[in-house]
Amino acid sequence: MSEQRVIRPTPISGFPEWLPEIRAVEQRWLDHIRSGFERYGFTPVETPSVENLDVLLAKGETSQEVYTLHRLQADAGDNSDAKLGLHFDLTVPTARYVAQHFNDLTFPFKRYQIQRVWRGERPQEGRFREFTQCDIDVINVDQVPLHFDAEMPRIAHEILSGLDIPSWTIYVNNRKVLQGFYEGLGIADPLAVIRTMDKLDKIGGEGVRTILTGEVGLSGEQADSCLALARISGGDRSVTDEVDKLGVRSELLTEGLEELGFVLDSLSDLPSGSVVADLSIARGLDYYTGTVYEAAFDDDPGYGSICAGGRYDDLAGQFIRRRLPGVGFSIGLTRIFAKLVAEGRIEAGRVCPTDVMVAVPNAQRREAALRTAARLRERGFNTEVYHQVAKFGKQIQYASRKGIPFVWFPPLDEGGTHEVKDMTTGEQGEADPETWSGTD
Amino acid sequence: MSEQRVIRPTPISGFPEWLPEIRAVEQRWLDHIRSGFERYGFTPVETPSVENLDVLLAKGETSQEVYTLHRLQADAGDNSDAKLGLHFDLTVPTARYVAQHFNDLTFPFKRYQIQRVWRGERPQEGRFREFTQCDIDVINVDQVPLHFDAEMPRIAHEILSGLDIPSWTIYVNNRKVLQGFYEGLGIADPLAVIRTMDKLDKIGGEGVRTILTGEVGLSGEQADSCLALARISGGDRSVTDEVDKLGVRSELLTEGLEELGFVLDSLSDLPSGSVVADLSIARGLDYYTGTVYEAAFDDDPGYGSICAGGRYDDLAGQFIRRRLPGVGFSIGLTRIFAKLVAEGRIEAGRVCPTDVMVAVPNAQRREAALRTAARLRERGFNTEVYHQVAKFGKQIQYASRKGIPFVWFPPLDEGGTHEVKDMTTGEQGEADPETWSGTD
Repeated sequence: MSEQRVIRPTPISGFPEWLPEIRAVEQRWLDHIRSGFERYGFTPVETPSVENLDVLLAKGETSQEVYTLHRLQADAGDNSDAKLGLHFDLTVPTARYVAQHFNDLTFPFKRYQIQRVWRGERPQEGRFREFTQCDIDVINVDQVPLHFDAEMPRIAHEILSGLDIPSWTIYVNNRKVLQGFYEGLGIADPLAVIRTMDKLDKIGGEGVRTILTGEVGLSGEQADSCLALARISGGDRSVTDEVDKLGVRSELLTEGLEELGFVLDSLSDLPSGSVVADLSIARGLDYYTGTVYEAAFDDDPGYGSICAGGRYDDLAGQFIRRRLPGVGFSIGLTRIFAKLVAEGRIEAGRVCPTDVMVAVPNAQRREAALRTAARLRERGFNTEVYHQVAKFGKQIQYASRKGIPFVWFPPLDEGGTHEVKDMTTGEQGEADPETWSGTD
Repeated sequence: MSEQRVIRPTPISGFPEWLPEIRAVEQRWLDHIRSGFERYGFTPVETPSVENLDVLLAKGETSQEVYTLHRLQADAGDNSDAKLGLHFDLTVPTARYVAQHFNDLTFPFKRYQIQRVWRGERPQEGRFREFTQCDIDVINVDQVPLHFDAEMPRIAHEILSGLDIPSWTIYVNNRKVLQGFYEGLGIADPLAVIRTMDKLDKIGGEGVRTILTGEVGLSGEQADSCLALARISGGDRSVTDEVDKLGVRSELLTEGLEELGFVLDSLSDLPSGSVVADLSIARGLDYYTGTVYEAAFDDDPGYGSICAGGRYDDLAGQFIRRRLPGVGFSIGLTRIFAKLVAEGRIEAGRVCPTDVMVAVPNAQRREAALRTAARLRERGFNTEVYHQVAKFGKQIQYASRKGIPFVWFPPLDEGGTHEVKDMTTGEQGEADPETWSGTD
């Protein structure tokens, strides 16, 4: 033991880290999300953690959140990494990726991307400096069929349904409905209204009305119509009739209602209430141009969206002179997971993935134990051999502490009988490594 | 199309990125490595990408390679992330993790960790600024059984054997043999010899002899004995006899030879030549104290190790006053993968993970196509529905471009017959979504 000074490690605020039994659950979630994406034929893509700063800042709006990289002891002559920043989302890297590899990709380009992203924000509840996003998008040249607008909530529904999380709802809307409705009302700057409506959850109807009739310059009647639209919600196409009844007309509104109706019709087989049209959903970003999605916990809607996305017209205009529309969504894995961990709602998984621990009867039978373990592994069981010669009681205790479900006892003599102990029931009986199924 | 300036994205040197069909192979490799680790009962751990600088630099030796983080527009009052750096390996984070969570872990702590690491080096062949390491270690309080020294090369062998890579060899040695032998020769500073022997590959026997008899201060006879030891290699315990024949004696040497013999005996069932004792392997780091491993490509040994590790006495002495020895190894995934990509030796995988594409006969049958796809997904097939109504020829062409192996044709009328086309053979025949197996 050296007598050096000991640095007591402390958690770093905003950078979550889990104990193995919690991490095991997170890993299961990641696998589930990934297989959910692949089940619909989306291809995995990863990009570097960094982008050139001019790429990251091409839209200019999020500069304060970017972490830039610096070498602790940079060579004076080498500034090749002086302008690198960690990506703060997966959208900018995807836009850059599609533009850079345009000629090598097959369109429609259906990709998913599960990676960590970084934001230099002040940490607060539900906000992290490093977190994992799970993005799925389909991107095509010139046009993306409406089919995908309808498929995205289905994929989200299927994935969220398979996670052991509190109940949630996926809300759907269409920006064309909002914009077309506002245009039909004769409002000059519909985007300003959309940005204001996006605050409805936070500041309420009265607050929104004040801004609309104030800064945005609407008449009281216009503002009331906007709020009436925002009050419409429902699980099927009838919502479009309700919008109709408000008596506002515009070409864009008609188009938006058709699209929204198509999406709702396509999802009508899903359990009632799991996908709901909510005409108040705006997704404030100027980016979105059609269908928008947002999922939230039913018991804590104020926590914000746990999954969100929508359709956009121009993914990569900053990087390539091609029209590349797309539609997609992002699951905020860390946002969901960390909240449930903090609330004690994650049931810890096994400490280790071992299915069977093979006990070592004595030094002479160690090789036989290794052979048995190798056979069990070949047959698909995660298997470890107890790491030394010790009393069986001690070996069983180790398996118990690690949560290993079965302990295997190789015969004391070559040709003897194997036995296996079910650690859950405590039962022990004969077993054959060639045929054992793990649960009988 | 906006008329804004277009930023042409360019690759960032040292930060690899793959096209989807290559990425698909890398993902398969990662899954294979992970399941190889889990098959032996190791638990998955992840740590944040950053550590506090005092943690990263606790050993003080690698400061020039660390990337530090800076917020592009930091608040004047908030310097909470002023002292963060990206981890440059997974050993330091593991040491910190074990120390920090010591009371919550079950020992022996068997974990694997597959993550990206970052080094602010000048990029060159086989060196990256961002790359993925796959680490596996067993760490225990006070002592780690020799069992694990023998298990590690077995795990490495099993994993590397399952990757489609050029032939390789795992070399094994024991630092006690080296140190004990040098002590037996009466050499005052055995570590200086170890560090010199580590350069054997690069500067050759003559070069090493010059340093040993020069700077290190050995006699010519001592240097020749050291080089004679380094020439010993072989696949079984007989190498220990050859060392014996050199006539050097010390307690540590005897202990080292026993350990090396135990490891080689335990691995004697592996295919001949896959694990070889090589008494020249030194692993220069002072860190290692017993068994050491190193795997290299047979056709390009100069590329350096593709997998390396060993036993150490003191994992986390900088962070906790407990003796925590361990043994493990690390697979340099990106090092291996990027080399093979560059040499065109990676056979690209499928562009997408889709098993079946369901064609849409017409608008009226779109819903039936969606239902068929849902059923195939439930049955475990990755399934996509062609995204619009189009001529079958166009739909088949899409599947062909994406490398989708089967195209499914739902019946034109409810109750009609499904057909499926095998895109590899071109054959088409009747099929039932309830029973289709994908390959008949």
